[in-house]
Amino acid sequence: MAAPFTIGLIQMAPEKTVAASLEKAAGRIEAAAKAGANVVCLPELFATPYFCRTQDHDAFNLAEPIPGPTTTAMAEAAKAAGVVVVAPLFERRGPGCYQNSLAVLDPDGNHAGVYRKMHIPHDPGFEEKFYFAPGDLGFKTFQTPFGPIGTLICWDQWFPEAARATALLGASVIFYPTAIGWHPSEKAEYGETQRDCWITIQRSHAIANGLYVAAVNRVGTEGSGEGYGETLEFWGSSFVADPSGRIVVQAGITAEDILLAEINPQTIETTRRHWPFLRDRRIDAYAGLGKLYGE
Amino acid sequence: MAAPFTIGLIQMAPEKTVAASLEKAAGRIEAAAKAGANVVCLPELFATPYFCRTQDHDAFNLAEPIPGPTTTAMAEAAKAAGVVVVAPLFERRGPGCYQNSLAVLDPDGNHAGVYRKMHIPHDPGFEEKFYFAPGDLGFKTFQTPFGPIGTLICWDQWFPEAARATALLGASVIFYPTAIGWHPSEKAEYGETQRDCWITIQRSHAIANGLYVAAVNRVGTEGSGEGYGETLEFWGSSFVADPSGRIVVQAGITAEDILLAEINPQTIETTRRHWPFLRDRRIDAYAGLGKLYGE
Repeated sequence: MAAPFTIGLIQMAPEKTVAASLEKAAGRIEAAAKAGANVVCLPELFATPYFCRTQDHDAFNLAEPIPGPTTTAMAEAAKAAGVVVVAPLFERRGPGCYQNSLAVLDPDGNHAGVYRKMHIPHDPGFEEKFYFAPGDLGFKTFQTPFGPIGTLICWDQWFPEAARATALLGASVIFYPTAIGWHPSEKAEYGETQRDCWITIQRSHAIANGLYVAAVNRVGTEGSGEGYGETLEFWGSSFVADPSGRIVVQAGITAEDILLAEINPQTIETTRRHWPFLRDRRIDAYAGLGKLYGE
Repeated sequence: MAAPFTIGLIQMAPEKTVAASLEKAAGRIEAAAKAGANVVCLPELFATPYFCRTQDHDAFNLAEPIPGPTTTAMAEAAKAAGVVVVAPLFERRGPGCYQNSLAVLDPDGNHAGVYRKMHIPHDPGFEEKFYFAPGDLGFKTFQTPFGPIGTLICWDQWFPEAARATALLGASVIFYPTAIGWHPSEKAEYGETQRDCWITIQRSHAIANGLYVAAVNRVGTEGSGEGYGETLEFWGSSFVADPSGRIVVQAGITAEDILLAEINPQTIETTRRHWPFLRDRRIDAYAGLGKLYGE
C-alpha cells in the first residue's frame, strides 16, 4: 500500500496585478509546504480577476501560453517548496483559441501535464463559453511523486461522469479549483441552497467513487468599479471530503485560508472493500449516457 | 407545462405472511390516495422478509411470476384507489432465473411495465448476488397518467450512471424502493455515517439531474430467530428531495409512515434553466465510463 500524503488547499483572492498574485501564491505554497503539504492546489484562474463576469474582448489579453509567466513562476514555487503545485490559468493556445486550464508542476520544477476544463458554463456573470473552448484532453489522473491526483475545474463538479471517469484512472483525490459565488441580488433567497448544493454534489463524488475530493474556491467580492462586469461574492468554503463523504476540513466563507488534509490510500482501499461500487457497475448498460436526451 | 402531481411513499415493515403484507400494503395505498397521492411506492421486496440476509435455497419459494399474487393484489389496490402503484417483488422468471424487480400498476389495474434491478449488491447480510440475476431491461421511465416516473431499486442508488440514464429518459421523479439498514455490531461506530452517505448520494442525484428523488425504505428489525440469518435494523428515513436536493419531507428511523410530496414540472423546468447541466454534458468524452478501470 502506498504511503499517505498531505494536500494543501489555498483559498485566496487575486491581487491587483498578475505579478502580485503570483508572488502571493508562491508565499502561500511555501507556507503550506512548511505546514506539511506535499501537493498544493490554487483556485480557478487564481492569478487574475474572474473576468468571465462579462464579455470583454480585451480580457483575452490576460491569457498566457503554457509554459508562460504563470506556470514558470509556479514551477519555481513548486521546486523551492518541494511540492507538487496545481496551477489553474487562462491558457492561450493560439490566436482565437483560449481555454480554462491547469498545469501540474512537479517538485523538480518540471511540467507534469495539463488538464483543460471539459464542461464550460455560461450564464449571467459566469460567461465562460465566450472565452473558453471546451477541453480537448479528456479526463486526467497525474502520477505525482506523492500519489495519483485527479484534476477537474469548477463547473465539471456538477457532472458525476467527470468524477467517475477521473476516479477510474486511479486518482486518490480529485482537486476542483473553483470560482463560484453569489450574485448579491440572489444571495438572500437562494444563497444557502446554492452553497449547500455545491458541497453536496462534491461530497457525493467522494462517496460514489470512494476517494477524497478537494474543492478549492476563490474568496472575496469582485466587481464594483474594477471592470469586468457586475459584482460577484465568491463564497470560499473550500473543503476536503474523505472517501465516505465526510468533510474533514473546511474554510470560512469570507477569509483567505490554507487547509491541510491527509490522503490515505488505505482508507480508500478499506472504503471500497466495504462498499464495492466499482465491482458492480453495469458497463454493458450505460449507452444512454452517450446521448443528450431521450432513447 | 404538465400539471403537478403528488407522490406517496409507504415506509413499512412486512407482516408474517405475504397475504398479510399485501393486505397491509393495500390499506396504506388507500390511505395515501385519500390523503392526495397519485403515485404510490412501496419498499423493496415489501411483501416478504428481507431473506437476502443469508443464502437459503428454500427462500426461492418466496418468488412469484409477473403477473402473480403480488402484482394482482397491487393492481387491484391501484384500481380501487385510483392511483399508480410501484410494487417491488422477488420475481421468478423460470426455473433458476430470479430477479429483484418492480411492477408499475396503473389506476385502471393494468400493468404499465417492469423494472429489474440493474446493480446487485453482495456483502455479508445483503447476499443478493446469490438470489438475483442482474436486470436485463436497462433503465426505465414510465409514462403514467399523472406524469413520467423513473424507477431504480436500492443498490442502484449508489451509481450516478443509473440516475442520469433514468433522468435522460424523461423522469420527473426517480423512486428508489430500498432495503437498507444497520448491522447491530456496526451501528454505533459507522451507523450515522452510513445513513448520511445514503441520504447524500440520493440528494446528489436530484441536484445533478434537476429532478425529484423519492427514497422508500423498509423499517424495523428483522432476524432474531425468524430465519434468514443475522439481524438487520432497517433505518427507515424515507424522504423526498426536490430538484435542488432539499429534503422536503422525511420519515423517522423506527416507525412506519406515509409521506406525501408534490412533483412540480415547473420547478424542474426552472431549476434546469438556471443550472443547465443537461446542456453542457460532454457526450463525446465519456468513453471511459464504459470501462471498469484504467485507460
